[in-house]
Amino acid sequence: MVSKLIEKIQKTKAPICVGLDPMLGYIPEHVKEKAFAEFGETLEGAAEAIWQFNCAIVDATADLIPAVKPQIAMYEQFGIEGLKAYDRTVKYCQQKGLIVIGDIKRGDIGSTSAAYATGHLGSVKVGNTTCSAFNTEYVTVNPYLGTDGVKPFVDECNASDRGIFVLVKTSNPSSGEFQDRLVDGRPLYELVAEKVVEWGEASMDGDYSNVGAVVGATYPEMSKILRKLMPKTYFLVPGYGAQGGTAEDLKYCFNEDGLGAIVNSSRGIIAAYKKDAYAKFGPEHFADASRQAVIDMIADIGRVL
Amino acid sequence: MVSKLIEKIQKTKAPICVGLDPMLGYIPEHVKEKAFAEFGETLEGAAEAIWQFNCAIVDATADLIPAVKPQIAMYEQFGIEGLKAYDRTVKYCQQKGLIVIGDIKRGDIGSTSAAYATGHLGSVKVGNTTCSAFNTEYVTVNPYLGTDGVKPFVDECNASDRGIFVLVKTSNPSSGEFQDRLVDGRPLYELVAEKVVEWGEASMDGDYSNVGAVVGATYPEMSKILRKLMPKTYFLVPGYGAQGGTAEDLKYCFNEDGLGAIVNSSRGIIAAYKKDAYAKFGPEHFADASRQAVIDMIADIGRVL
Repeated sequence: MVSKLIEKIQKTKAPICVGLDPMLGYIPEHVKEKAFAEFGETLEGAAEAIWQFNCAIVDATADLIPAVKPQIAMYEQFGIEGLKAYDRTVKYCQQKGLIVIGDIKRGDIGSTSAAYATGHLGSVKVGNTTCSAFNTEYVTVNPYLGTDGVKPFVDECNASDRGIFVLVKTSNPSSGEFQDRLVDGRPLYELVAEKVVEWGEASMDGDYSNVGAVVGATYPEMSKILRKLMPKTYFLVPGYGAQGGTAEDLKYCFNEDGLGAIVNSSRGIIAAYKKDAYAKFGPEHFADASRQAVIDMIADIGRVL
Repeated sequence: MVSKLIEKIQKTKAPICVGLDPMLGYIPEHVKEKAFAEFGETLEGAAEAIWQFNCAIVDATADLIPAVKPQIAMYEQFGIEGLKAYDRTVKYCQQKGLIVIGDIKRGDIGSTSAAYATGHLGSVKVGNTTCSAFNTEYVTVNPYLGTDGVKPFVDECNASDRGIFVLVKTSNPSSGEFQDRLVDGRPLYELVAEKVVEWGEASMDGDYSNVGAVVGATYPEMSKILRKLMPKTYFLVPGYGAQGGTAEDLKYCFNEDGLGAIVNSSRGIIAAYKKDAYAKFGPEHFADASRQAVIDMIADIGRVL
């Protein structure tokens, strides 16, 4: 799978993904009003608003980007109806030729992780019939339970040509609370990184592994070290833009081949119309604002590569 | 919420919960055949089999137990249809007066954890209307992202009288890979335990906190230490039975008041009819086998309390 991701990144010259994290507060009033008029102020109404919002953004940006990263929590908060919007969004993006990184951060004991892996990356057997459920190209995985919580995802990467990004160093303010604690003089996230390398060796696809790592843009000094520790690991880099990470902060996430990382922006793209820089588009043309924000982000990152 | 849980535990004299983790392999052929005849070998067919299986087990055991713990992965693997079965199961158990512990192991950056918390424990605002989605009494939470990934769940505990169990020391074989690593001479899980105490102080409900901890039955020496470190923290204890934990291993999870822990068994209860000890019931009477397994588990744990 990572070779497909790289191919798309090279074709678009855009090592970025758009985070489809549609909080209701980001969605323009006219989109919500239309959805609520049809389905009421209900979970179904919220899901419809999300779906319409996503469609417009995907239509306006799909030719510029290799991938999207829907954050499943933003759908799951609206229950079954929200998850239907997630499922529709995934399939719509795939029809548009985009790679979908399901930001699900799952991880459990072995048999349970196997269920998540089949449901999100692979297929599941019902009687004698093979069915697939969410079927995204990539998912994110939480490593706190160790190898037997991650291995079922790696197995699915191999069985179904899929990929994962394992949380190594997250972008949030308190990520250091446990991740930075020193074990034998080295931060925990480095130990996790070494395990990611080990897991990744079992799923190589060209020069890189299908087992990637989440490395936050907000901690550039750490990404420099992590880049060296994990030379064949693709990084999914959250934290650019709204969370405070700059293009300058990102450069250490890339290898000398200009590859090795895909940078996510969510709010900065999907809610661009709310920022002063894109206010001229207005809420009516929110998707055009998102397109311009994507073009600007690609240029911004291009400067440091 | 923890006071309600304790009340139910005291009323049933059963500090246990039944893990509703319906892998298709556990479901008797006649249940699957009926579901597949109606809905085909589809995700819908699988979800129907799960739902019928769960209903029978809940009907046969609800008067004996305080709580159930559905593992959402076992539903999520069947996509939207599976999650509908999760949702129906949650609501059915609540109608029967059971406390539902959604074993979801979510955890993310602050705004994302807030979305999970509203979706699973609280309610979400759609326009001017308040809607609720999965609405379980408890969920499990992964602490790898630190305080800002956990706090939104604690806030929801206070806003909606709910509870959480934070992963401290999990029951799986490789849980020690990161959780046991020494930080300043002490295992990481002890540091997590101290944070659980700190988070829990913000959500006390009687003698115990709504912020509980997951402590695996498979590591009794560690639970002894954790019990002392977290005197006011309720433990959710997986790993009894099929995973190898014995009643003897559990005794350190309880306080001297006989409270402080709720022990989960999944396979040992829901697939009891497959075990030699309950073979006499046969697949046709799988739910009666589950009932007997619950009675035996309560007696087994009663011996060490």
